[in-house]
Amino acid sequence: VPADLLVVGTGLIGTSIGLALRGQAEVLLHDRDPAALAAAAERGAGRVWNGTEPPAHVVVCAPPSAVAALIGELAARLPDATLSHVSSVQRPVDQVVGALPQVCGSHPMAGKESSGPAAASARLFVGRPWVLCPSPATSSDALAATRRVAEQCGAEPLVTTAAEHDDVVALVSHLPQVTASALAAVLGRADTSLALAGPGLQDTTRIAGSAPGMWVDVLRTNAVAVAPLVRALAEELTAVADALDAGDVAAIERLLQEGNEGRRRVPRKRGEHDRDFALVSVVVPDSPGQLAGVLVAAADAGINVEDVRVDHLPGRPTGVIELLVQPGAQAEARRALTAAGWDVAGG
Amino acid sequence: VPADLLVVGTGLIGTSIGLALRGQAEVLLHDRDPAALAAAAERGAGRVWNGTEPPAHVVVCAPPSAVAALIGELAARLPDATLSHVSSVQRPVDQVVGALPQVCGSHPMAGKESSGPAAASARLFVGRPWVLCPSPATSSDALAATRRVAEQCGAEPLVTTAAEHDDVVALVSHLPQVTASALAAVLGRADTSLALAGPGLQDTTRIAGSAPGMWVDVLRTNAVAVAPLVRALAEELTAVADALDAGDVAAIERLLQEGNEGRRRVPRKRGEHDRDFALVSVVVPDSPGQLAGVLVAAADAGINVEDVRVDHLPGRPTGVIELLVQPGAQAEARRALTAAGWDVAGG
Repeated sequence: VPADLLVVGTGLIGTSIGLALRGQAEVLLHDRDPAALAAAAERGAGRVWNGTEPPAHVVVCAPPSAVAALIGELAARLPDATLSHVSSVQRPVDQVVGALPQVCGSHPMAGKESSGPAAASARLFVGRPWVLCPSPATSSDALAATRRVAEQCGAEPLVTTAAEHDDVVALVSHLPQVTASALAAVLGRADTSLALAGPGLQDTTRIAGSAPGMWVDVLRTNAVAVAPLVRALAEELTAVADALDAGDVAAIERLLQEGNEGRRRVPRKRGEHDRDFALVSVVVPDSPGQLAGVLVAAADAGINVEDVRVDHLPGRPTGVIELLVQPGAQAEARRALTAAGWDVAGG
Repeated sequence: VPADLLVVGTGLIGTSIGLALRGQAEVLLHDRDPAALAAAAERGAGRVWNGTEPPAHVVVCAPPSAVAALIGELAARLPDATLSHVSSVQRPVDQVVGALPQVCGSHPMAGKESSGPAAASARLFVGRPWVLCPSPATSSDALAATRRVAEQCGAEPLVTTAAEHDDVVALVSHLPQVTASALAAVLGRADTSLALAGPGLQDTTRIAGSAPGMWVDVLRTNAVAVAPLVRALAEELTAVADALDAGDVAAIERLLQEGNEGRRRVPRKRGEHDRDFALVSVVVPDSPGQLAGVLVAAADAGINVEDVRVDHLPGRPTGVIELLVQPGAQAEARRALTAAGWDVAGG
């Protein structure tokens, strides 16, 4: 009887899959780095593969540029197994191994700033989309086995093509990463103090702090989809600079309007968008427990807080806590927080 | 005896100044819009100016493009008063009225998504920087009167030049606004679903939702400082697109590294930066009170939460709450939250 699953690559994603499947499947682990392999086994993600024991299904959790070669090698070694991978970029893998019926690509939309088996979590994928990208040659067995792993991890599988997947992530993930990195690079070159920066600069540059190693691999393997988007943004910005130089007010206004429209398309939660929420701002002294106090007061009043933002200004002894609530709850939230003694701005 | 202060323009900023000075100074109010004037007076920001009563000091709270003309007119009408304004852009005002010794420019670094007297707050400026921009001609009386208003509002005054101010805000505020708007505009034009978007896209496009009206005025009046920065970013992005097309991995890596460096320069709080905090992630069901529960558990354990991020995925029944804490408190925060029954990721 073959083991249920072989995880090849026991970093954050591979180890998290092993942890999520504990009690549901027999999991074998392999990694070319003995330390990462030992760490994953120690955390209970599965048992170390002896190199010959046959698994029913294999999932390769390696950087995009390494996936295709590993899949090819494993397909030759394990002719009876179905195979999958979790590459952030699907097209280049599909181009190499897409003709193999036992292979189905996939990509769980989960991750975090930290990496490696120590950062893994059995719940990393719970409720997250897990994109399945079968090729025309993919067998129904391979697709079913790949879907099963996603479901066992608690993710929500959805099926698309490798090309469609890569175009979507280029737009919603890779372009924002390049934009934030380029903006932060321009900021970093200025010899001006950034001490007056507010929350806008914080937000726009946060993902510029992402680890370069993984992103270099993602961007170069998806260059075909990312480059035209980056070029479109560069052209947009050049047009804005020209409009500023020429004092073309209509063009500047058009940019801001189009920005408003694009922003309204960005999903927040369950298909809701920014415009569906109302803001309640509370000014607090910068001391421990303020955030908990505000949220407890909101919870006590039966207010469901959809999102929260904390704005500490550099060098300042106070902060502003912004709560996003349903529009119908805004007045009640203001009233309840004020009644509880909080300093509600604009109230 | 002249009244202490005349506020000209009773929108968010002017009305907030009046509210902040209540009990500290006698405040007169003026606005060409009778509704805004009545609303500010009704909220207790001051009493309506009769058009002749002489104030000791005037603060003009009008859009950047309207400030210089108003200052000139008021200086002629009120020859014994010192005058200030709160323009987001200082240079164009300074070029017109900088030779008048009774005038001192200033800019409180505070604001919010909403506008108008109804959104005003006596505490809007508490702890915020308030930049003072005296010209070489500005009298010590005008500077002192301007500083006094900032201090009475609870802000922290700091002195610089109009040119320096405009260069700094172009970098830390106007460039990020243009970048977010342009990114959202490119997104908005794509006929791709954005349903797979995660928190990175949320953050990078949030300020693209800002009201166009005010921003058109800010950007065109500070075009001289903003345009070169926008052009530098466009050139950076064109170079990235070229590197992606050419498969120039070293150039892509350089971008990401420089992005990391720039991001490290963005201040968080009291001169602290991202690298000074540690992350603790908690997976929660998407139901009311979870955020409060996590923060109360942290507060009960004596953990000071520096910042918090809530990540709801569109269409998903769970969320992730990320707490930023002092690095020395990370292990204890994980332990305490786990002990309190919370699902700490990677723990």
